[in-house]
Amino acid sequence: MPRSVGSPGRRDTLALLARTLREHGPASRARLAVLTGLPKATVSTLVVELARRGLVRVAGRVELLPRTAFGIGVEVRLTRVVATAVDLDGGTRLSRQAVCEPAALRVEEVADRIGWVIAELSADVRAAGGWVCGITVVAPGLIDTEHGVVRLAPRLRWREVALLDTVAARTGLPLELLALGNDANLAALAEHRADPVPDLLCLVGDHGVGAGVVADGVLVRGASGYAGEVGHMALEPLGPYCACGRRGCWEACVGFDALLHAVAAPGDPLLDPALDAAESLAVVRARASAGDWRALDGLHRIGAALGTGVAILATLLNPTAVVLGGYFAALAEWLVEPVRAEVAAGPVAAAAVPSVRASALGASAAGAGGALLALERAFDDPARSGPDHHDHEEAPA
Amino acid sequence: MPRSVGSPGRRDTLALLARTLREHGPASRARLAVLTGLPKATVSTLVVELARRGLVRVAGRVELLPRTAFGIGVEVRLTRVVATAVDLDGGTRLSRQAVCEPAALRVEEVADRIGWVIAELSADVRAAGGWVCGITVVAPGLIDTEHGVVRLAPRLRWREVALLDTVAARTGLPLELLALGNDANLAALAEHRADPVPDLLCLVGDHGVGAGVVADGVLVRGASGYAGEVGHMALEPLGPYCACGRRGCWEACVGFDALLHAVAAPGDPLLDPALDAAESLAVVRARASAGDWRALDGLHRIGAALGTGVAILATLLNPTAVVLGGYFAALAEWLVEPVRAEVAAGPVAAAAVPSVRASALGASAAGAGGALLALERAFDDPARSGPDHHDHEEAPA
Repeated sequence: MPRSVGSPGRRDTLALLARTLREHGPASRARLAVLTGLPKATVSTLVVELARRGLVRVAGRVELLPRTAFGIGVEVRLTRVVATAVDLDGGTRLSRQAVCEPAALRVEEVADRIGWVIAELSADVRAAGGWVCGITVVAPGLIDTEHGVVRLAPRLRWREVALLDTVAARTGLPLELLALGNDANLAALAEHRADPVPDLLCLVGDHGVGAGVVADGVLVRGASGYAGEVGHMALEPLGPYCACGRRGCWEACVGFDALLHAVAAPGDPLLDPALDAAESLAVVRARASAGDWRALDGLHRIGAALGTGVAILATLLNPTAVVLGGYFAALAEWLVEPVRAEVAAGPVAAAAVPSVRASALGASAAGAGGALLALERAFDDPARSGPDHHDHEEAPA
Repeated sequence: MPRSVGSPGRRDTLALLARTLREHGPASRARLAVLTGLPKATVSTLVVELARRGLVRVAGRVELLPRTAFGIGVEVRLTRVVATAVDLDGGTRLSRQAVCEPAALRVEEVADRIGWVIAELSADVRAAGGWVCGITVVAPGLIDTEHGVVRLAPRLRWREVALLDTVAARTGLPLELLALGNDANLAALAEHRADPVPDLLCLVGDHGVGAGVVADGVLVRGASGYAGEVGHMALEPLGPYCACGRRGCWEACVGFDALLHAVAAPGDPLLDPALDAAESLAVVRARASAGDWRALDGLHRIGAALGTGVAILATLLNPTAVVLGGYFAALAEWLVEPVRAEVAAGPVAAAAVPSVRASALGASAAGAGGALLALERAFDDPARSGPDHHDHEEAPA
């Protein structure tokens, strides 16, 4: 298929070699030459460079070293900041978190907490013998990945927040080490790594609904990084009012609040605002498991409304797999079947029904996706990813 | 961004070099080495191979030769079969057509007509000094690109038609020379070549509505090649009945029949089934140009309904540009503005409003896209694209 090919240079041949090693495992230089199409002499030169950076070991065959370059993903959630580190061969995963309520803090205070978990996790990475080659800050909402700005994240009460600049200013971390990403997009990236089907649609249920799309192995980001903002698709002209002021937005039909209202009786303690999301979820699960008809009926209606939207997206994108994450995954026993039914009844139907399943990655998907994206820097530019490139010791703790 | 990288080999380095020449124009071997990241000696070897195939000329600098390899796209429309040939540097375009009504013919008879226009056009290509390196048959509907089967094309009255096998059997053309593609997807490809923004959404209005999506420079095909089948997105639960049996499908709201009904008074001669589409379109244009309020009101409602769907797709995909093709382009003066208004009022709104414009390629977009896809074979595998590889003289006329 046509592709606008940029102008590759030495960076790209290094990246090509590094990726080939990740995908094919240890291989001889001769085999690497066949796999990459590069001349054997070029492969040898590149291998020397990767070895000098400490990324590969050469013992007959060339192999990626584990616990060398790590990527970090730091997710800003409503009730905590969670950092996840993943190493080059994906075999090691480390994690740290700071419990806090970002919506109640100033952005600088959130940036400080981001800095703390990064500093702690960077120390863990060094203790494991590795170094950090990149950091992705992960947030919900409309994320301008190019400028590192959270354009709009209603639940965090953020609008036009220059998050990356703030993090860089408060932590002293160099901006070129940092990237910003949307939670659902990065969850899709992690799901794709866990189950690399070519075409994957990931839907993350939270207070809103986010989507991440992988098409032919590549994350669809959109012109401004806003792809996957499906929460306000107008699905029901006469549906419930949405926080955005419109009616019948998808997330007004299937967001977490819609779930609680679908499942609860009037005056139900489940609607007590003092209950946190994890507690509410546990109550819903308990009721559904006990066969409570109102809970089962509510879950079925949520599943059907979720399926209506999934059918539209599946018709447009023709994915191999649809993965349900966030609270959808936590209630998968009751939601997956109605979604499957709606998708199977959809227009493309018999021709190309995608599989529908719950995420196996749980709440860490977006953070892990952020770490993977950060790691891509090591692949895209292995020359920049050596242990001496950034001195993380100097990140303020 | 992460990408599942296949294992490139010699083919890919040849393709890389050919693409680089197309994108950057004539260049020295030294410059090509810089642009591709390949060693200079490798570039020299590859240039010799491309020259041997007659694809490049070396005169100090290396340059792609015009009128060498051509791709052909053959589009099966309701009232004709149209073939378009495009050469490697895009500077030459040739065309042939056979007027017929495929829905009234047996598939074998359609395949014969496809063979005729290919034979005529191949002769034109040879007369221009070139050769044909690939042929894409283009059809509307649900197209299984992998197996060369039209799964469902209601207007052609086709279901499970093994079109490529039939064309190969009737024409003697080798199957490996042939590919099958969906009209809207290939129109998107041609639009993208004409205006290479990274993220493009193309909507083609006909009796149905088809979409083609280019994300980050790559056509989104979906797992089975069905991506872009947006005609049956359920937009209005209480909307008009669709030919598919559901209500409120997008194409029931904005397909060509919906346009005619929106514009016409009861008993209006515009609704006479004897009128062909071009004549009806001319009448609609004439009335709207004359200020006929019913025509203007109908067009505005169609534009708004088109915009509602575009806003959903734009929210998911965050394209740079939305291009309206097919009958939407023919009525652009009256449709583009209401679409813009709906998109601007959509959820992503201020953050990332794509441009909305009519296609400048007209009805030939899908055929040209098919030719470009066929040409990609020359880029993907220049070794296969020499003039001696297939003997098109033997294609039956």
